[in-house]
Amino acid sequence: MTDIGDIRAAAERARGHIHRTPLLEAEALNRLAGRRVLIKAECLQITGSFKARGGWAAVSALDPETRSRGVLAYSSGNHAQGVARAAAAFGIPAVIIMPADAPVVKVEGTRAWGAEVVTYDRKNESREEIGAALAEKRGLTLVKPYDDPNVIAGQGTAGLEIAVQAAEADVREADVLVCCGGGGLSAGIALALEADAPGLRLRTVEPEGFDDTARSLVAGKRLENGSLTGSVCDAILTPSPGELTFPVLQRLAGPGIRVTDAEALQAVALAFRHLRIVVEPGGAVALAAALFHGDGIGGDTVIAVASGGNVDPDLFAEVIRAA
Amino acid sequence: MTDIGDIRAAAERARGHIHRTPLLEAEALNRLAGRRVLIKAECLQITGSFKARGGWAAVSALDPETRSRGVLAYSSGNHAQGVARAAAAFGIPAVIIMPADAPVVKVEGTRAWGAEVVTYDRKNESREEIGAALAEKRGLTLVKPYDDPNVIAGQGTAGLEIAVQAAEADVREADVLVCCGGGGLSAGIALALEADAPGLRLRTVEPEGFDDTARSLVAGKRLENGSLTGSVCDAILTPSPGELTFPVLQRLAGPGIRVTDAEALQAVALAFRHLRIVVEPGGAVALAAALFHGDGIGGDTVIAVASGGNVDPDLFAEVIRAA
Repeated sequence: MTDIGDIRAAAERARGHIHRTPLLEAEALNRLAGRRVLIKAECLQITGSFKARGGWAAVSALDPETRSRGVLAYSSGNHAQGVARAAAAFGIPAVIIMPADAPVVKVEGTRAWGAEVVTYDRKNESREEIGAALAEKRGLTLVKPYDDPNVIAGQGTAGLEIAVQAAEADVREADVLVCCGGGGLSAGIALALEADAPGLRLRTVEPEGFDDTARSLVAGKRLENGSLTGSVCDAILTPSPGELTFPVLQRLAGPGIRVTDAEALQAVALAFRHLRIVVEPGGAVALAAALFHGDGIGGDTVIAVASGGNVDPDLFAEVIRAA
Repeated sequence: MTDIGDIRAAAERARGHIHRTPLLEAEALNRLAGRRVLIKAECLQITGSFKARGGWAAVSALDPETRSRGVLAYSSGNHAQGVARAAAAFGIPAVIIMPADAPVVKVEGTRAWGAEVVTYDRKNESREEIGAALAEKRGLTLVKPYDDPNVIAGQGTAGLEIAVQAAEADVREADVLVCCGGGGLSAGIALALEADAPGLRLRTVEPEGFDDTARSLVAGKRLENGSLTGSVCDAILTPSPGELTFPVLQRLAGPGIRVTDAEALQAVALAFRHLRIVVEPGGAVALAAALFHGDGIGGDTVIAVASGGNVDPDLFAEVIRAA
């Protein structure tokens, strides 16, 4: 399993290839939340989401001969771009399995990195099966979106940065809210904070109705979501917590938080207005929790990860005009 | 006049009060420009523009007794917020003179900092006269938007950061494109680069038809704009280069660049899509020059300052949907 040494090694391999994203703050959001809110803006990461970290960590860890045959990933869009970008930088082929209803901006973003995109039906087909078959046929290495030790280590590099940036902002104790799908980002950050900022506690945030992680943490075992469609937060709709990620979260995460789609969209609009960043709905659930579910959060400061910003212009336009 | 010592002193006073904004990059923009494009994202600055730097520098430089009586500024919006925010942090009154047609988001943003907003008619009234009269009557200190040595020093702190960040990105020689109104940001950055990164050359960028600085640089004397309305780039429509700023630009700046409103709006849309930042039209002219006027720029890398992100949601929505 991933440990802090793997995360530090991933950070070393990422030097010069991955942005150190800023920790932003806006007085208006502090007032709204009733406490200080620091926003780790991973939407400003290369490819528009933290997934560039995990993609780079996984592809850069492969031995050169295996890597040269190419990589494969299945993804609703952000992991796709993270892996496609790493593959492009290494000059190797990338095949990406994406749901047919993925946002156009994510499909186009993936193709722009030179990747081959194969689509599937999110309701009736298994991306895992399609991916495994293609990987075998073409000699590609599958880069899983979260249940891969290197991917978790890569996402954890965001946690190393949060630890440093929180200390720079004089924050020693706070909840760190993370948008949670399969749990790769959450687990990686939790491991990094455990080592470098033990006063910071990880909390997962999910859309209502897709709260597999929150329920699993209560139940003490991995539970599934009833559906994988029906929320605007497409980036974080996954079947269940990961095999590798869940034990980490069980050990290190506080209780999970749920937000409504309406709250996520309101957070998108507020981030536009007060932070001047573009956040997609699934990447805004942690900020939504900080702003609208403060009663379940302790302390005078909260840190929220804005995990991605790949949003279709029509949806974004609608959200900021409605606010 | 402002010198590098003033800029370093302003940076020292700003520590913990002003963000170090990131230098962003997107492969898609590099491809479009045909060279590497690094974007200094000052739209992520506190208050949404670089003006927070100058406002802080000016207010923090006042002696405490003078400061306690309050400050006054005239501004189309971004300088207003910069000064209002500094005043709020010091707990002193702020009166801001704004054009009646300033974007609502800027008026609201200024009031949100607790400032008193007085509006005027941009075509028929002089903000300078209104400001001077009010300052005298109430004992307020006028903080000019650009012709103030401390304000220029404050804006120059962005240049100190660019010098460090360019070196980190292995860039030693490049044009640095800056959105130019009265020239405070351009002059401040030029002075900082002269000291810390002499291989980086400042270039001013203005909207077509409001190119007073470009024309003045050619003429060797300060020329005026024919009009102060009629461009979507409201943030940078000023009467003429400043008395203090122009001599600095004469000495240090390369030839000025002009972009159309359509190019500025296209840059807004591209920054949304590929950088996930919110840039206002006047803050996007430097990026527009990097993307669409590359023939007038030398070298394999260009740095563009995205100077502000306070844009009305309706306009922003229209721009990103049209692209």
